[in-house]
Amino acid sequence: MKKSQIEKLQNIFGKDKVLTEIEDMIAYSYDASHVEIQPEAVVFATTTEQISLLMKLAYRERIPVTPRGQGSGLSGGSVPLKKGIVLVMDRMKRIIEFDPANRLITVEAGLTTADIDPIAAEANLFYPPDPGSVGFSTIGGNVAENAGGLRGLKYGVTKDYVKMMKVVLPQGDIVTLGNKCVKHVAGFNMEGIFVGSEGLLGIMTEVTLSLLPIPEHRESALAIFNSLDGAAQAVAAIIAAGVTPSTMEFMDNATINAIQNFKDCGLPRDAEAVLLIETDGQKDSAIAEMAKVEAEVRKNDFRDFTRAQSSEERDRFFAGRRVALNALAGVRPNLILEDATVMRSKLPDMVRGITAIANKYKLQVGIFGHAGDGNLHPTFLVDKRDKDEMARTEKAVTELFQLAIDLDGTISGEHGIGLEKKPFLQNQLGAEGIRLLQNIKKTFDPLNLLNPGKMFDMPEQQSA
Amino acid sequence: MKKSQIEKLQNIFGKDKVLTEIEDMIAYSYDASHVEIQPEAVVFATTTEQISLLMKLAYRERIPVTPRGQGSGLSGGSVPLKKGIVLVMDRMKRIIEFDPANRLITVEAGLTTADIDPIAAEANLFYPPDPGSVGFSTIGGNVAENAGGLRGLKYGVTKDYVKMMKVVLPQGDIVTLGNKCVKHVAGFNMEGIFVGSEGLLGIMTEVTLSLLPIPEHRESALAIFNSLDGAAQAVAAIIAAGVTPSTMEFMDNATINAIQNFKDCGLPRDAEAVLLIETDGQKDSAIAEMAKVEAEVRKNDFRDFTRAQSSEERDRFFAGRRVALNALAGVRPNLILEDATVMRSKLPDMVRGITAIANKYKLQVGIFGHAGDGNLHPTFLVDKRDKDEMARTEKAVTELFQLAIDLDGTISGEHGIGLEKKPFLQNQLGAEGIRLLQNIKKTFDPLNLLNPGKMFDMPEQQSA
Repeated sequence: MKKSQIEKLQNIFGKDKVLTEIEDMIAYSYDASHVEIQPEAVVFATTTEQISLLMKLAYRERIPVTPRGQGSGLSGGSVPLKKGIVLVMDRMKRIIEFDPANRLITVEAGLTTADIDPIAAEANLFYPPDPGSVGFSTIGGNVAENAGGLRGLKYGVTKDYVKMMKVVLPQGDIVTLGNKCVKHVAGFNMEGIFVGSEGLLGIMTEVTLSLLPIPEHRESALAIFNSLDGAAQAVAAIIAAGVTPSTMEFMDNATINAIQNFKDCGLPRDAEAVLLIETDGQKDSAIAEMAKVEAEVRKNDFRDFTRAQSSEERDRFFAGRRVALNALAGVRPNLILEDATVMRSKLPDMVRGITAIANKYKLQVGIFGHAGDGNLHPTFLVDKRDKDEMARTEKAVTELFQLAIDLDGTISGEHGIGLEKKPFLQNQLGAEGIRLLQNIKKTFDPLNLLNPGKMFDMPEQQSA
Repeated sequence: MKKSQIEKLQNIFGKDKVLTEIEDMIAYSYDASHVEIQPEAVVFATTTEQISLLMKLAYRERIPVTPRGQGSGLSGGSVPLKKGIVLVMDRMKRIIEFDPANRLITVEAGLTTADIDPIAAEANLFYPPDPGSVGFSTIGGNVAENAGGLRGLKYGVTKDYVKMMKVVLPQGDIVTLGNKCVKHVAGFNMEGIFVGSEGLLGIMTEVTLSLLPIPEHRESALAIFNSLDGAAQAVAAIIAAGVTPSTMEFMDNATINAIQNFKDCGLPRDAEAVLLIETDGQKDSAIAEMAKVEAEVRKNDFRDFTRAQSSEERDRFFAGRRVALNALAGVRPNLILEDATVMRSKLPDMVRGITAIANKYKLQVGIFGHAGDGNLHPTFLVDKRDKDEMARTEKAVTELFQLAIDLDGTISGEHGIGLEKKPFLQNQLGAEGIRLLQNIKKTFDPLNLLNPGKMFDMPEQQSA
């Protein structure tokens, strides 16, 4: 990057908010995926207006810009593929307005998602989406990736809670999209297309989110199964009984054993699968729903069903799930965490298919995830130094994605496409589907300067 | 339209599915709004492929096409402004797949929305959005307008239930957008931007909708208030108490009297306002919630609170609400039904403002609507033959929209922009907001042939 460009950045952001030293670039070259590319400059925004000036500069001087929250993404969304400038958003973390009467909160995009709940709780409200990264990821990153989490079946995902947003468009215009009303049909659903747009269409600087009343009561249970099919059939039976648990987490035998090796969480090493189930709502209702859950579990190939009698027991049940990823990470030097997702009814096919793929390529895999919404996290346990194993893993992952597509599922339930899944998106959407995305991108960002190279490639003549 | 073009239409749809006689055009020249324009031809589609061929023909020969469901829209969305061809969708009404295990149903766009529930009910499921037109409007029309209804506060609107769709793009390509999974983040949220797109971006031919379990129990009550503020404060207090009623319908004194003149529904003529409130869910939960509702109502300026003791009593409560529009229609020769919407907390300001506007312009107005989601239907009672009154009404409506915008609300909560509100959209979205919509439209429909002239104008050089 030219010296004159650096000076222009310093004029916009202030000298101490612009980094250009090589050693500073390293921290902004990666996220939680497997790609690492160093930018040429890093800037820390504190206002929407600064970002508008940045994009006008970027467009005048043809500099790629990649927005970044906390860099906790799992698909490479904040890695600066085309170098240029990394725009760090996590200094923008003000609460603009908490409006309990309308169950709304408006915050800056850099706020950590988990910081919303303590404020909302003052009026007995909460923000339902709870991705695993909720304690450190930013709400802007969550919106850009349409983050999911454990409560998707009952409470939906991020897009179900985004009402309004302030956005800096790629060429620097500042617009407000959406509306605070429950119902709003004036113009296209522009806020909707920004949720999950992975930083390709504009930079969200403020978002207005809807909140829900904190459920009065929560019931928790641990169900242990002798067979995978028993667990899968129990999930289907619970849903068919009209119950919508707030959480229904699945862990397979490999995951159970990894957890028990990591830390004794009281899980039976010989169980084929466990489900962690929660119902919530009014007290009587949550209890009645859990009774229906138990009845359905007992009809299937189960070994044990235990309802938590205290919040301590509940925490004990969940301790295993919480450490699952760390536990799996300890089995081998590296792990490849996927989020290929299918409909609930296809879960048994998906689990069998994943196991078959792992066997075919002689790979270790642990499967855990959100059974209620079909969003599993098959996790391959590997050693990156082993070239042969990595080649087999690559083939296995490719087959895994195709399996999800063949089962009418999706190659990504909640982590996004970014760089990691870009080669597979056309299999999912088809050539015409990709062309639509390219056209939308070109409409917003004709020079392809905002987070270029993510999700899909642009036709040659349009790229930066 | 040229004879050769008519023949090409007959080749695509069959001779008996193409109308061109002047007298046939009349029935396809209007919807439930106030605009009437006759097309040059009407075609009845039965397959997606026919529609693809139609759009290819339209693009080759530069013919405007306007899709139409049952013509029950309130904003002119299906009126063929630029003449050309009206594409009637209501012959496409097959159930493609009912999938209770995944709580999904896939139907053709021409199916009447109310026809979904009897099928869903076989597995104890239901489709929550319930616009007033649910008994005759098509699901394709509901999706195109992002229809709302009485249960918006608790259950959301159409866009919250659309998972996947088959779409014919303006140039004739057939694409599938979205996914059946609960979680799906592969590509932009393209299905999201089609919901509420008013037939401007493509023609939906099939949609996959999510369903919910039918609530076990419903509690209904009629609350009568001495003052508008009493009703508005009760709404706020109920929400603040953490209750989310499934219905909270508001009617003002003018509406109450119109109903009582139309048919005795037992409503007190001297009450300033009534609220019809329902809670639903597990039985104990619905009852407990209604107890909280009652406690909050009793803290405000109420006169009477009656819980329905039977479904007959419930029907009696709702009889008034059901005939409200017909009753108001009987007061004067014509009515102008609006749907300007604000946040719940702004309801008292909105009701006061509407009353002040009506007084200023010496107009009769009845106000009823969905208090829980701030979506009121101020209804001006007029005589279209009275030019002076109509001129005053036009001014009143313009002020009403500006009031909604000034209160951070929206000019349309559920009826859409179409032709009726097109002049006011820029006040809502700003010039930059309109430019974004134009750019999106141009991306999908570069020659502006699909439902041209609705929602916003295109820059001159691009129009059909």
